[in-house]
Amino acid sequence: MALSFSLEHTDADSKARAGKITTAHGEISTPIFMPVGTAGSVKAVTQQQLYQEVKAQIILGNTYHLYLRPGIEILNKAGGLHGFMHWDKPILTDSGGYQVFSLAQSRKIKEEGVLFQSHIDGSRHLFSPEKVMDIQRNIGADIIMAFDECPPGQSEYNYAKNSLMLTQRWLDRCINHLNSTEPLYGYEQNLFPIVQGNQFHDLRKMSCEYVASKQAPGNAIGGLSVGEPEAVMYEITALCCEHLPADKPRYLMGVGTPWNILECISLGVDMFDCVMPTRNGRNGMLFTTNGVINIKNKKWADDFTPIDEGLPNEISHYYTKAYLRHLFVAGELLGLTIASLQNLCFYLWLVSEARKEIIKGTFTSWKNAMTEQLKQRL
Amino acid sequence: MALSFSLEHTDADSKARAGKITTAHGEISTPIFMPVGTAGSVKAVTQQQLYQEVKAQIILGNTYHLYLRPGIEILNKAGGLHGFMHWDKPILTDSGGYQVFSLAQSRKIKEEGVLFQSHIDGSRHLFSPEKVMDIQRNIGADIIMAFDECPPGQSEYNYAKNSLMLTQRWLDRCINHLNSTEPLYGYEQNLFPIVQGNQFHDLRKMSCEYVASKQAPGNAIGGLSVGEPEAVMYEITALCCEHLPADKPRYLMGVGTPWNILECISLGVDMFDCVMPTRNGRNGMLFTTNGVINIKNKKWADDFTPIDEGLPNEISHYYTKAYLRHLFVAGELLGLTIASLQNLCFYLWLVSEARKEIIKGTFTSWKNAMTEQLKQRL
Repeated sequence: MALSFSLEHTDADSKARAGKITTAHGEISTPIFMPVGTAGSVKAVTQQQLYQEVKAQIILGNTYHLYLRPGIEILNKAGGLHGFMHWDKPILTDSGGYQVFSLAQSRKIKEEGVLFQSHIDGSRHLFSPEKVMDIQRNIGADIIMAFDECPPGQSEYNYAKNSLMLTQRWLDRCINHLNSTEPLYGYEQNLFPIVQGNQFHDLRKMSCEYVASKQAPGNAIGGLSVGEPEAVMYEITALCCEHLPADKPRYLMGVGTPWNILECISLGVDMFDCVMPTRNGRNGMLFTTNGVINIKNKKWADDFTPIDEGLPNEISHYYTKAYLRHLFVAGELLGLTIASLQNLCFYLWLVSEARKEIIKGTFTSWKNAMTEQLKQRL
Repeated sequence: MALSFSLEHTDADSKARAGKITTAHGEISTPIFMPVGTAGSVKAVTQQQLYQEVKAQIILGNTYHLYLRPGIEILNKAGGLHGFMHWDKPILTDSGGYQVFSLAQSRKIKEEGVLFQSHIDGSRHLFSPEKVMDIQRNIGADIIMAFDECPPGQSEYNYAKNSLMLTQRWLDRCINHLNSTEPLYGYEQNLFPIVQGNQFHDLRKMSCEYVASKQAPGNAIGGLSVGEPEAVMYEITALCCEHLPADKPRYLMGVGTPWNILECISLGVDMFDCVMPTRNGRNGMLFTTNGVINIKNKKWADDFTPIDEGLPNEISHYYTKAYLRHLFVAGELLGLTIASLQNLCFYLWLVSEARKEIIKGTFTSWKNAMTEQLKQRL
């Protein structure tokens, strides 16, 4: 069964939408945030906690990391990533394009693909569109991403254009290779192409039209949240949403803060992923319904109120700010788990509230008030 | 309500006993293992997991660590350690005696107490019997330990004897100070004296008799598992059990491996604590019903069997050896959590099985077979 998307409600005052994605591993209510499980684990969180506390509907894995460790042979023997990590809901895998450009020790971009050295042991590898499709076949995610070039955020027009042309040729090779191979685990995998084009409107528009012409089950916007001003990110996101099909889910890759997510929902984005809730959580930065907390701050030392009373999750009520601060100060691993859970619970709560507000027809006013509230530094 | 102990069954073929300890925070079935939560957290494990997965009946905190961080003022404001970490079952606190001797940067033992420097910031502190009782009043554990001197395992007879005499004088000061102060949180705290005397039979016997004369609600055996041969540990444990009251729980401090615990249960010990399940777990050493596993070993890379099918716990069935090995190899925090949970679940399972076998009258043969099985290196 291929992925399908049904639109349930479109906001009158914005481009926000509420919908439902159906995959072989179940349904996803949109807008949705996808916790990042880079190497087969959402860091510091158990799968039980992802199901029961976070109520994650889909998680993300990363082709580059999974290819290096545990490797394709192990994943294949395990029946794919679902079996390997024992996760029965939908999974999306990033193509590794972004990682080979940002993580690998050295890399050489050719028409054929990208030659790179592993950040772990310096070993040499080639990622081509075909290779990346084969790897993603073995990982077995429900949604798989096209292999794209990710040019630096500050690229000149000509570099950006040449890069986009390469990404488009690679997209065709991804599609061709995927069409000539079969899924390995008995269910369909769905390729999402990625829009590139940096901050150049004509390139973004061209990319959207090219991507749209492929009639993929969903489409992604890449190359944002890489250092550009927020206003530029919103402007390009709005432009891409306008030119991407309305009847397919739109996935904005790697974005972002809670208020970035609210704003981009209002622009028509349906799917998000970001390492921010887990990474910032491990550094002691908490996102709460009242604003942002640096839990290491001395001011929380004797604050015995719950971490976040505004969330329905047990973890947010069970532990106090004073206790969580103590765990961070004492270097206790439990602190990393609680902070990661708080932030993931918050992100999942935020998108589910957004969805309710869209359906109620009150999204825009709610978003504006919520944005002020969430940005506060407590 | 003071702690009470009822003996339910005494083994015919050994000194093993099954009993029940009742505290203000609930009942404890013995023999029992107490997970160590040194600084107010059983490392890498949530309180929810302790309740639901591990089924811990009592946990241990440490006076030295809690006194340094978060400090007595915070603990007092939180209503004690139970409130601070949100743990509603019984807690036992170690007196800090062992830590000031093993962890502090420098220490000076005087009749008054021990002057030491914090291992965290070098700050100077005095632990006296009275001070340690005051700290434990503020922590509010159900079972609190006397402040003892912990002489090196290889001490000469005269050093050991003088040390024991000091420990006995300190015990009297602990009892006097406790009797002259009130519990802070409305429930009784129960002081366990600690038997010392190194490997010297006459000193151990003298210490047991002194300790027994105090008619405390429970008694502890200290100064073992500090590098002596296993045979010596068993010999001294047997001697102490013989000379300690039979109608009070006996707590063997800091012991040990699964087979140490089984052997010491057979000698008459009721309570155990040890950092081994959590510390060794974080190093990739798993205790399972089939034997010991170094999960980092290459041989587990494609072993897709559950971590331990012999345990009833979800965590032991849910994740495979291959997945857990991957988490360790990739440095994922989840590996530390799963390994800690596996080992704690195993230790709690082991003592509950021992209890069943004692009640059935089949303990000794079960223990002998189990010891062989558990010691195997897989």
